[in-house]
Amino acid sequence: MIIGIIGLGLIGGSIALGLRKSSFGDKFIGTDSNKENALHAVKLGIVDEIIPFQDLIIQSSVIILSIPVNRIEKILPSILNRINTDTVILDTGSTKYDICNRIFSHPKRNRFVATHPIAGIENSGPFSAYSGLFNNKTCIICDSELSSPDAMSIVIKIYSIMNMGMIYMTSKEHDLYIAYISHLPHVISFALANTVLKKFENEKTIFNNMMGSGLDSTTRLAKSKPETWLPIFISNRENMIQSIDSYIDHLNKFRNHLIDKKYNEINQYMKKANDIKR
Amino acid sequence: MIIGIIGLGLIGGSIALGLRKSSFGDKFIGTDSNKENALHAVKLGIVDEIIPFQDLIIQSSVIILSIPVNRIEKILPSILNRINTDTVILDTGSTKYDICNRIFSHPKRNRFVATHPIAGIENSGPFSAYSGLFNNKTCIICDSELSSPDAMSIVIKIYSIMNMGMIYMTSKEHDLYIAYISHLPHVISFALANTVLKKFENEKTIFNNMMGSGLDSTTRLAKSKPETWLPIFISNRENMIQSIDSYIDHLNKFRNHLIDKKYNEINQYMKKANDIKR
Repeated sequence: MIIGIIGLGLIGGSIALGLRKSSFGDKFIGTDSNKENALHAVKLGIVDEIIPFQDLIIQSSVIILSIPVNRIEKILPSILNRINTDTVILDTGSTKYDICNRIFSHPKRNRFVATHPIAGIENSGPFSAYSGLFNNKTCIICDSELSSPDAMSIVIKIYSIMNMGMIYMTSKEHDLYIAYISHLPHVISFALANTVLKKFENEKTIFNNMMGSGLDSTTRLAKSKPETWLPIFISNRENMIQSIDSYIDHLNKFRNHLIDKKYNEINQYMKKANDIKR
Repeated sequence: MIIGIIGLGLIGGSIALGLRKSSFGDKFIGTDSNKENALHAVKLGIVDEIIPFQDLIIQSSVIILSIPVNRIEKILPSILNRINTDTVILDTGSTKYDICNRIFSHPKRNRFVATHPIAGIENSGPFSAYSGLFNNKTCIICDSELSSPDAMSIVIKIYSIMNMGMIYMTSKEHDLYIAYISHLPHVISFALANTVLKKFENEKTIFNNMMGSGLDSTTRLAKSKPETWLPIFISNRENMIQSIDSYIDHLNKFRNHLIDKKYNEINQYMKKANDIKR
């Protein structure tokens, strides 16, 4: 079985390495719009060969789409037009509704499985890829009733090999939940980074010396790539606005308690937040 | 030399373990308002002996105050009243202005050194303490011109043993900077935890399965203890309000760009935030 990877970065690269490690697939072929990444992917053993996009689509039995969500949405219909009848396509994008909506009425819709393996780290590119990235993490599979059983079973096999747990929901539910669980934390982290960078713009030495004490973890996601995240924010715009508004409400509650010296309320607020420990 | 530790939690415990490891100090005595923590601290080898507070103050050559900032502020004057003339006291509190202000005119002010070893983690208690906690991190020493040279040299020795870098500033500067670098990230994390816990209050299974993807790191600090953090927020209230307001401004900027579909501006916003990588 030939596996074709479109997008040889962190996610596509890690899936390829994980599958190769367990000898799933006979040959791995790939393509990446970034030529350097493509060359590195071969050197790193992510794929055997870089081949043109059009050839990859015809030759692959399984196509894995690991590129920014706007590009998935754009090229998915034309890929579906051209694939063989038994080819399976899956994507790994961080938003799902727009992608699923775009091909809802496509005659080959059932060859596609919409997935989101949750394993994002702030690093990117083929050098960050490793076979254990998805170990013990969760993959969300969306609108699975629209995919044919044989396509589903291959995709489930792939994520099982990665040792992922799988949960199922609609693409609409996915986008709402993930706005809070993943996209909002990214916005929060970008905003915090900009707040402190602005505050310390004339005191860089003090800033560098004082790092630590919590800022590292809360600004980890602020290192994420705009190329990946802008399309996600655009695609999940309405849920994002809802989640940011809800977050600002919670933040204002804390702020107002502090202004009003309502310290019992602040104590309760923190105790509630401690539940995140589970 | 006898070292007295008041407060045998993460910070006091880790300092004791670090000093013992390098054979600084002949005997370690301690006290903690939590009797269980005190017993554990002896079992864990943090101190040799638990002794009453009043005796500890008389017997110790160096007193390390590692308790919540409101309690430091409260008991520091009476400790200064009673110590021998060559005893050195240092505190490790996360705010410094109120503490320093409280004893500004005390006749024994120069026996006290105001410090903040930046190494906070969300864990607490003697079981979390370890000798390497402060390795390669920064200690801020405040208003050092008010401490006598011999007291300063002992404190510098202690933090050098912990392998900490030291920086010097006024207690007022400390509280302003640390509001942004440490206290604001805590508020942000508490608020995020409450936002997602509220959103998922009726969907706990989905929530537990979807964790990951950035929420772990941004809510790490939300596990912090209210007993420690409420006094910090109260003591640093004005700087906190300023830093929260500045943060909400930055967040609103992102939100408004998203509402207005100003995607170039969002791209620039993220690129700026990426500078946090240094």
